[in-house]
Parts: sequence; structure tokens; C-alpha cells
Amino acid sequence: MIKVAIAGYGNLGRGAECAVKNSTDMELYGVFTRRDPASLKTLTGCEVYSMDDILNHKDNIDVVIICGGSATDLPVQTPALARHFNVIDSFDTHAKIPEHFANTDAAANEGGKCAIISVGWDPGMFSLNRLYAEAVLPNGKDYTFWGKGVSQGHSDAIRRVAGVADARQYTIPVDAALDAVRSGTCPELTTREKHLRECFVVAEEGADLARIENEIKTMPNYFADYDTTVHFITAEELKRDHAGIPHGGFVIRTGKTGLNGENSHVIEYSLKLDSNPEFTASVLVAYARAAARMNAKGDNGAKTVLDVAPALLSPCDGAELRKRLV
Amino acid sequence: MIKVAIAGYGNLGRGAECAVKNSTDMELYGVFTRRDPASLKTLTGCEVYSMDDILNHKDNIDVVIICGGSATDLPVQTPALARHFNVIDSFDTHAKIPEHFANTDAAANEGGKCAIISVGWDPGMFSLNRLYAEAVLPNGKDYTFWGKGVSQGHSDAIRRVAGVADARQYTIPVDAALDAVRSGTCPELTTREKHLRECFVVAEEGADLARIENEIKTMPNYFADYDTTVHFITAEELKRDHAGIPHGGFVIRTGKTGLNGENSHVIEYSLKLDSNPEFTASVLVAYARAAARMNAKGDNGAKTVLDVAPALLSPCDGAELRKRLV
Repeated sequence: MIKVAIAGYGNLGRGAECAVKNSTDMELYGVFTRRDPASLKTLTGCEVYSMDDILNHKDNIDVVIICGGSATDLPVQTPALARHFNVIDSFDTHAKIPEHFANTDAAANEGGKCAIISVGWDPGMFSLNRLYAEAVLPNGKDYTFWGKGVSQGHSDAIRRVAGVADARQYTIPVDAALDAVRSGTCPELTTREKHLRECFVVAEEGADLARIENEIKTMPNYFADYDTTVHFITAEELKRDHAGIPHGGFVIRTGKTGLNGENSHVIEYSLKLDSNPEFTASVLVAYARAAARMNAKGDNGAKTVLDVAPALLSPCDGAELRKRLV
Repeated sequence: MIKVAIAGYGNLGRGAECAVKNSTDMELYGVFTRRDPASLKTLTGCEVYSMDDILNHKDNIDVVIICGGSATDLPVQTPALARHFNVIDSFDTHAKIPEHFANTDAAANEGGKCAIISVGWDPGMFSLNRLYAEAVLPNGKDYTFWGKGVSQGHSDAIRRVAGVADARQYTIPVDAALDAVRSGTCPELTTREKHLRECFVVAEEGADLARIENEIKTMPNYFADYDTTVHFITAEELKRDHAGIPHGGFVIRTGKTGLNGENSHVIEYSLKLDSNPEFTASVLVAYARAAARMNAKGDNGAKTVLDVAPALLSPCDGAELRKRLV
């Protein structure tokens, strides 16, 4: 059995807890938290320890799934833990992945550990699909669409508008853009043409709704470049109809083959997820298995999903996989 | 530059020739054929050699892409060549993959070479997607649908019916079945519920069309278990409207996460291919790159796509891939 620890216990940590429980070859050693361990009640009743003590548990843990946030937690936690443990994280600030990789690689190599970073669905499963599709169809172009799903960052941005009590923002791919991409014409699409933004807003009593709507729609970076719709609803409606954290998206590559590019092909990968954090956590757990195995075979340093042979993700052995899945 | 040889020059070999030409880090050393080399005119004007002489070219070739058929060619050719070369094949008789793997593994290990078998889209890209989806969502079920596309085996079966001059058969997934699968209800689907078979038949002059149609529709294994439609057309119409070799399909997995399976997810991968052999050949060429690299790092024996780290398929280095695709 692979002994797994979870560092951080928010939505992602809880998702990882459930996914480890669902794995036949893993056992959850415990959750490590920066909060008071006594204050934390886990879903499965597993052990809870203080993050400050994690090095004392080193010999009992094969791999740590780090469930912190990309903005401030992971840039510090992942290199720090990778010096002592095999680790997995879901670092998703795309522009900073090279820097995070370098920092983690140095630490993991020093400690002789394996660290797989930026695991999840984007980055993660979408990265894999961009790579496979490009490798097979080098003469082509790929597109990534997100949604329909809740964007936490955009929901937070709305909540910062004066007079807003709560909000939920959905990112929605534009059907016409998806169809244009699938047609193989390799269209150049603007930001506005690719995605819509739909906002459900609970206003404070007496707030100026027209001003709120205008402030949202003209907000630079977040909304100004998109066709945005704003719906004002009650707190009860928000709770009843928008409590979930769904997400998903599409990676589509079209490309040509033949002596003169005579033939066109479309490769499409899509996800439709009821729970973004639970799915992300499920990917993390599969790669935790791979990290433990790679390190057991002497493979150290930082990796991404692109560096991991697919078979390492499965609890089944090669012979069974060949028989059943190839 | 990776020096590639192509063994066998049918549709797949020609597709490989085009794909190698389209690769920035590969050069085509030549085509090897069992026919008289002088009789063979290649698309790119590359060198043509006799298969009997291939061992004399051993030092000039990094990897051989074997483009024979699964029925009789590959079970012999792949182990024989794997003893002396890194090789790739597209062996697609699913039930015999374990046996073919074992034979090839023994030969490749003896020769210190790397052999990646069963490369293409099914087996191949579809195998990968079945594995990734199962590893991430172990609590779920996957489905594979094929088409819309030309089945060579079924077209051949029709041609063997008395009175048939030529034929083309399309395998078509049933939309209602696709929708039922995507709904996450994990339906049990019969053969008939999953795919339709549509046949375009050129009859010989004076042939009994009703008898031909009946013989096709009741043919065991090939058509009896399906809803089959038969259209009689002229040889000119067949040539004009059905000359291509399109194919494609879907791998869909639905699964549940959460403490009690509260949340559902859908992972879908699909291909829409204008040319089945050219796309298959493009996958072979990407894996040829991987085989040469794996062997250069000392990795011997038989592999499938499940054993190959994705980054090995790309001509780009890790830093570029992380920056651009992760």
C-alpha cells in the first residue's frame, strides 16, 4: 500500500481524501494542516496533524499531496516539502510554471525525491492532450475552451464591487466558436468570440443595481473583453441554484496530413465536471501513485504530467492493462 | 536527426512517408519492400530497398516503422526486426496483443532494442484515453464507439458475396447511445444499440439485388447483430462519393467522486479523421521518435503507448513544452 499524506484541507484536500479512500492500493496516513489539528473534522475521520510536525512523520509517508493555493502557498510549500517527500501539487499559474518547476526541481534533486507539479485538468489532463495532439498532428493548431463552469477568481472579483453581497460567475464557451474550430478552418478568435461570462449577483439592500452591473461589465481584465450578462438574484436563489462548483472545457486540435496537407483531422478532448475540486483531486491522487513508483525506481527531481508514463497512474500491472485497455 | 526506415509500402507506409517528411527532427532513410524495389515509385522519391537486404543497412537506421498487416505480416515481421532495430508497429488484433507483446519483448530484449507495438488510434490514442480516464475516475465505466468510418474488413466481407462487384461499408455510432453514455447513467448497450452499418454496393450486371441485400444483412459476426442498410449504387458513384478512407470514434468514461459518489463527471475523447491510414501513420511516426530516444537511454524490450512518457513524442525539449503546453 502507498501511504499518502494530504497537506492542506480545503475543497481540494477533501476531494483528495475521498479519492484516496476510493483507491485500492493506497492508504491515507493523515491530513496536515496549519490550523489547530483539534479544530479540524475530516470527512473520513482520518488522523489530523500539524503542518509544523510533518518532518517527524517522514518515515511513514510515501507521498504528500499538497492541496494549497497557487498564489502564495505552493510556491513556498512545494519546494520546501519536495526536499523531504515525494510530492504532487496543482500549481496552475501557467506563466509561472517554469519558475516553479526550477525551484521544485532543485529541492527535489537535493532530497532525492520526485515532485510532480501542475497536476489537475488545466494544467494537467489538458496539457497532456495539447501535447499528444501536437505530436501527432504537427501541421495544425489547437484551441482550449473552458466551461461551462464556475470561475472562483471572477466570482471573487464581483464580490469586491461595492454593494455586492455575494456572486457566482460562470465561464461559458461560445458554441459558434467551438463549431468554427471543429470545422478545421483554424479561425483566429478574439477573447470575446471564445467565451461568455454569466454572473449571478446578490446585491446588498438598497444598492444601485445599474451601477453594479456597469462596474462588473467594464471591469478590466476580468469582464471588459467579454460579452457579460448580469442577473440579480436573492441569497436563497444563489444557495439553491448555484451551490455547486462545476467546470470543464475542451481541447481541440485540427491538423492536416498527406504529401500536400490533403486530409484534415479533428482531435477533441472534453471534460464535464460536477465538482472541479473533486476531479482535480482525483487526478492528483493518480499522479501521487506515479510519483511514489518513479521515486522507488530511482527517479528524482521535478516532473510534469508530460514526463510520466501513463501506465504508472494505474494500480493494475502492465499485463492486465495490455489485455484490458490497449 | 533520427533516421527512419519504413518497412512495407501500402496506404500506411505512404502515410508514414508523408509524416516523416513533415517532421523537423527526422529524415527518411528509405522504404523497404518485399516487391521488386525497381517497380516501386514513392511519393517523395525516397530510396527503395529490398526487405531481404535490410540487415545490411542496420548502421544507418535508428528506427523502423513496420507498415504490414496485423493478420499475417506483423506477428512475424515485428519480432524478427525487433531483434536488430528499434521498431514501431500498429498491430491491432486486440485479443492477440498479449501474445504479440511477449514475442516481440523476447526478441527486442535479446537485441537490446526498443519495440513499441499496437500504435495508432485504436489501439493507440484510444488505449491511452481509456487508461487515463480509468486511473482518474476508478469508480466509473468507459465506452468506445467507432465511426463514422470505413471498415475495410466489412467492405471485404461484402465483396465476397456472389454478384457483388465492389462495396464500401461505414460503421456509424448511434447518436442515442452516445447521448445515453454521456448522461452518466452507465447504460448496458447491446451491439445493435451502439453502432449502425451502412453499405454501398456495386452489383454485377443482372445480379439478384434482393438476395445480395439479404445475404449481407444476415451475415453472421459481420452484420447479423446490427441494424444494416444496403444501398445499391453504380461503380462511378462509388468512385466519386466513397473513395476516401475516413474514420474516427469516441472514448467516453463517466464516473463518480466524493465520499458517497455524489458528483458525476464525463471525460470524452473523439477523433474525426479524413484519412485513417495517414492519421495512424502520424501516430506511428511520433512513437518512432520515442522509441529511438528510449533506446538511446538504454531502455529495451517491448512497450505499448501506455509505457511511453508523453514528452518523448515531441521534437521540442522539456523547457519549451512546459512553457507552451502545460
